[in-house]
Amino acid sequence: MINVGVIGYGYWGPNLVRNLFEVSETNVVAVSDMRQDRLEQVKSRYPSVEVSTDFRHLLNNPKIDAIAIATPVHTHYDLALQALQRGKHVMVEKPMTSTSEQAIHLIDEATRRNLTLLVDHTFVYTGAVRKIKTIADSGVLGDILYYDSTRINLGLFQRDVDVIWDLAVHDLAIMDYILPSAPTAVAATGINHVFGGTENLAYITMFFDENVIAHVNVNWLSPVKVRRTLVGGSKQMIVYDDMEPSEKVKVYDKGITVNGSADSLYKALVGYRSGDMFAPQLDVSEALKVEIQHFAECIRTGAEPITGGQAGLRVVRILESASLSMKQRGKLVHLAPSAHALNRGAA
Amino acid sequence: MINVGVIGYGYWGPNLVRNLFEVSETNVVAVSDMRQDRLEQVKSRYPSVEVSTDFRHLLNNPKIDAIAIATPVHTHYDLALQALQRGKHVMVEKPMTSTSEQAIHLIDEATRRNLTLLVDHTFVYTGAVRKIKTIADSGVLGDILYYDSTRINLGLFQRDVDVIWDLAVHDLAIMDYILPSAPTAVAATGINHVFGGTENLAYITMFFDENVIAHVNVNWLSPVKVRRTLVGGSKQMIVYDDMEPSEKVKVYDKGITVNGSADSLYKALVGYRSGDMFAPQLDVSEALKVEIQHFAECIRTGAEPITGGQAGLRVVRILESASLSMKQRGKLVHLAPSAHALNRGAA
Amino acid sequence: MINVGVIGYGYWGPNLVRNLFEVSETNVVAVSDMRQDRLEQVKSRYPSVEVSTDFRHLLNNPKIDAIAIATPVHTHYDLALQALQRGKHVMVEKPMTSTSEQAIHLIDEATRRNLTLLVDHTFVYTGAVRKIKTIADSGVLGDILYYDSTRINLGLFQRDVDVIWDLAVHDLAIMDYILPSAPTAVAATGINHVFGGTENLAYITMFFDENVIAHVNVNWLSPVKVRRTLVGGSKQMIVYDDMEPSEKVKVYDKGITVNGSADSLYKALVGYRSGDMFAPQLDVSEALKVEIQHFAECIRTGAEPITGGQAGLRVVRILESASLSMKQRGKLVHLAPSAHALNRGAA
Amino acid sequence: MINVGVIGYGYWGPNLVRNLFEVSETNVVAVSDMRQDRLEQVKSRYPSVEVSTDFRHLLNNPKIDAIAIATPVHTHYDLALQALQRGKHVMVEKPMTSTSEQAIHLIDEATRRNLTLLVDHTFVYTGAVRKIKTIADSGVLGDILYYDSTRINLGLFQRDVDVIWDLAVHDLAIMDYILPSAPTAVAATGINHVFGGTENLAYITMFFDENVIAHVNVNWLSPVKVRRTLVGGSKQMIVYDDMEPSEKVKVYDKGITVNGSADSLYKALVGYRSGDMFAPQLDVSEALKVEIQHFAECIRTGAEPITGGQAGLRVVRILESASLSMKQRGKLVHLAPSAHALNRGAA
Repeated sequence: MINVGVIGYGYWGPNLVRNLFEVSETNVVAVSDMRQDRLEQVKSRYPSVEVSTDFRHLLNNPKIDAIAIATPVHTHYDLALQALQRGKHVMVEKPMTSTSEQAIHLIDEATRRNLTLLVDHTFVYTGAVRKIKTIADSGVLGDILYYDSTRINLGLFQRDVDVIWDLAVHDLAIMDYILPSAPTAVAATGINHVFGGTENLAYITMFFDENVIAHVNVNWLSPVKVRRTLVGGSKQMIVYDDMEPSEKVKVYDKGITVNGSADSLYKALVGYRSGDMFAPQLDVSEALKVEIQHFAECIRTGAEPITGGQAGLRVVRILESASLSMKQRGKLVHLAPSAHALNRGAA
Repeated sequence: MINVGVIGYGYWGPNLVRNLFEVSETNVVAVSDMRQDRLEQVKSRYPSVEVSTDFRHLLNNPKIDAIAIATPVHTHYDLALQALQRGKHVMVEKPMTSTSEQAIHLIDEATRRNLTLLVDHTFVYTGAVRKIKTIADSGVLGDILYYDSTRINLGLFQRDVDVIWDLAVHDLAIMDYILPSAPTAVAATGINHVFGGTENLAYITMFFDENVIAHVNVNWLSPVKVRRTLVGGSKQMIVYDDMEPSEKVKVYDKGITVNGSADSLYKALVGYRSGDMFAPQLDVSEALKVEIQHFAECIRTGAEPITGGQAGLRVVRILESASLSMKQRGKLVHLAPSAHALNRGAA
Repeated sequence: MINVGVIGYGYWGPNLVRNLFEVSETNVVAVSDMRQDRLEQVKSRYPSVEVSTDFRHLLNNPKIDAIAIATPVHTHYDLALQALQRGKHVMVEKPMTSTSEQAIHLIDEATRRNLTLLVDHTFVYTGAVRKIKTIADSGVLGDILYYDSTRINLGLFQRDVDVIWDLAVHDLAIMDYILPSAPTAVAATGINHVFGGTENLAYITMFFDENVIAHVNVNWLSPVKVRRTLVGGSKQMIVYDDMEPSEKVKVYDKGITVNGSADSLYKALVGYRSGDMFAPQLDVSEALKVEIQHFAECIRTGAEPITGGQAGLRVVRILESASLSMKQRGKLVHLAPSAHALNRGAA
Repeated sequence: MINVGVIGYGYWGPNLVRNLFEVSETNVVAVSDMRQDRLEQVKSRYPSVEVSTDFRHLLNNPKIDAIAIATPVHTHYDLALQALQRGKHVMVEKPMTSTSEQAIHLIDEATRRNLTLLVDHTFVYTGAVRKIKTIADSGVLGDILYYDSTRINLGLFQRDVDVIWDLAVHDLAIMDYILPSAPTAVAATGINHVFGGTENLAYITMFFDENVIAHVNVNWLSPVKVRRTLVGGSKQMIVYDDMEPSEKVKVYDKGITVNGSADSLYKALVGYRSGDMFAPQLDVSEALKVEIQHFAECIRTGAEPITGGQAGLRVVRILESASLSMKQRGKLVHLAPSAHALNRGAA
């Protein structure tokens, strides 16, 4: 049994606690939050759980094997670092940290101490995304040509992070899991409509070495909720619509066939295919439960989590570069190729 | 009665001819196309129409008052110029020309000769877009904050123009009609997946002086067809979905209310509104018919068409800048402010 | 504070308990269920609640003011009767009873003892149905002409009740709430595909005195889930689609205008109207919570609940007649007019 | 080349003429209509076609091999009979005739004279319905358990026929084509909201010998357009939604598996399957063109058309019975079993 302490009982914390109880290998020993009323809610629902307004009580509790962190982004690094330094395994909310430097420190710390470090890229553990991964890895899509995602709704305007760090982080985490390589350059644009606020609407283009392009459209000011991702392959293409009640993933036998030859610019012939569509049945297990089972398994076996520190770092690196590019109205920002090689090699 | 000669009887020509016959003020006298089999089709359907493989027969025909041009983009300038020089009114397919310089020449020529020059921005004449224009002009949307359009499908890969000139031109024409000002800078990204081809997928961000942003997502390689535009206002927002069979335009009483004050960066308060939705009934007249009636009226009265040369020029200018930016992976391209002032002043 | 005992902790019981705790005027004192494992789940979540495998412990508990019954239909009558006889207010799952005779007995018992008897027609308390009721009562629909509902999905085949008692009960409860009068005759058809089972697919037509018709299509064997109701009025019409994530209720300014005259069979002129559509914002409060607040208020004030015994009886009467008609392949079954008058008079 | 004369140039006639010209084996020689302005429209579009206000000119024209009839239902029998008596092949609009007796006479006349008699059940020739037929015949659906169709919209109120003869005829034609057997009894309900009119809303249940049920919901007074048919099989189920732009046919690997045994009423076990969904690519050829090619082929080879007189008769028989049942508020009307055997035997 892995005893877990949960820091932060705001929006996401209750889901963590509930699922940590439901997974047979994990148990919640203590919860900390700075707000007394949140702790009272913990007490009334889970009388056996210790509560505290001071997270250090959890870090110093020798019964606790792992810490789950569900606090604002700017606190992730400090909390995770202290937890690792006290020998606790760590599951940290996305985005992993505020900077890639911080992410690298956490990875180093976890590696040195042989501790499991998992970043909570929840969507990666949904039935839909796992099915897309299986399909993409099977090769039926052919070469992946593009990745295009839209994630818009009337959302909470946040002051500490912009819409990229709040919404695009989901797309980047999914993309990092599905695509065989990582982007090498980023160009982002966006706008802030509120005085003193952060960008509430943004567009990110990512370039890859392999003639692949990715794009993410995120918006806190949309009257309608859209969650749609296209994965275009040379043989088949996927449409992933998370707003669909059941047929979230559709695989289309559509595309083009290029018969080109190098000696002439005008000899390329494009043939069009338009075939059947297929919507596979999806596992409807709660993603967070699957993720916590994976966390427990990694702690037990020492395996690197699917969404470990390296995945967290790769996503933070793109977030950083996108925000930087956005400040300069789309100026191209290169992602260091060495870092890229390092990251993927470790995955 | 306005006698019209139609140059080009490919994909769009038959729609032009049919509607020119249906509008009571216009009549088709002659059609030219370089392909004999296309002309035979004209003859079998409209025995009274003269046909020719040489467009000059139309230009030299004194009975013809106006020329409608439905040929590939690179021929628009030459054909339109010759038609104007022979004193014919001109209706030219979109995009107006291949360069903004050409567009300016045509405007000058038409102005000097007091001839009507209309660019066939067909969508502007649909019931949906005209209704959006009425709503936007009424002020109920408040300040317009953003314009976001997606126009994707499995489309024909073209060799002479990229996806921006083929698909985004529609969005730019609609945007030019609806928004009260024009963009001042453009950043575009895209990719070409076919050796020797043009970009088949592109993303265009446009910046405006008034803290407004616009974005267009176009793609010839999508397994699903999407035609959706969001117009975000400070009071209400519009979703225009052209794939909806009847409720194409939806007006949402949703948004945020900002109560900000300048003395503190952190005093802005954001309130959320989520109210009713309203889908107005739309005029279902065929857009091209409405447009040809407008063309006839402008010829009769001498009025500047809604989609006259200036509108055509503004769109070409953005297309040019977007293609230029795309070649440099999103490098910001400024649209000359003087030209902008000139354009809008003339509108 | 109203102390409630809950009998039955299967599918619906947990929702009852949770909401009874959330409503400030109600409190759960005890829960009974015949299955020990269900009671353990109660204990782990709500340590303060007494549990028992014998419902009589609840009925005999003097601290308990009201009993909520969430058990199979055939037990409703006995449990509700005993509860009323012990002076407890009763909230009973739908359908109220297995026969209309039983329903009448319960109404009489509650009336005699001045106890509140509420039937859990949950949908009546949703924001969508309450909004439809407001719209219908406002008169904007004109005369109601028809009511047409489809409620189909891949559902659990039940042995004790047929699909009418399981699914159509929802539609009948909503219809009873919205329409100004009750049906006077029923014709139903259906089929049972499983040997030894009950009808798993059924169609019910209901006739009204006022040239109104209603129809309900229910099916446990549909590959897709549909929840759609049309309320056709002479002036406006409503489409209520419960599968829509947010725009569940749409009001259409569409219909026909009849200009008829009695002297000629052929003089009636039908004009068509096709106007705007309007989707009002809906209250998203959990229906069961609203319902329990209403239950508490009725107990406090002695008012008849919106879905009181009379509403429950009217629905059971139609269910009975529909099942009877279905056994005879659509034979018309009349609903006693006196009973009808009685029911509506009491509402 | 088959020379065709077309009687009736109202709503459907222009589609017939256009497709008769497009099919290489057929040609339009003459068109008749009682309205002069309709004939002028024929002349302006097709100058080579002879026109007449008297259909007898067509029947007496020896150059004409076949007659296509697109007139009101009550004229079908007379026109078709005269055409057959003059040795012309006949293609007649649906419904074939006003009574089954008339239909039988036409079948006899055509058989005796070895003439082709085709009823224009257009939907049978769509890519969607032909695909459904292929799927159903392949056996993958297992036993067909039910057929459920909804065909509603704001439609033209007609005086001479009720909504069953106008809309349900499509569903009955499709059902007749797809299902392996014909119904043996019908129960229908409906309502007429306009004084002096016909039923504008109707529900038809059909019973089959093989524990199969079918239901059709038709309505001229719906604010939304729905065209959805479910074909429930014991192994797989089909949803055919004609309003979908491309994925009109979806095959669901969903359903129940019954493991029953006869000795006990309670031993039946129901297992649920919920698997993948599959949307096959559909032929998008215009149905009417495919149908006319089939008509030409049947004339050439003497083969019985897919939608020949027998199919037309089976559909008229159900229409007759349904209208009869509807007049008696759902009274069951039996379809003569001998006729049924005869009909299917001939198919």
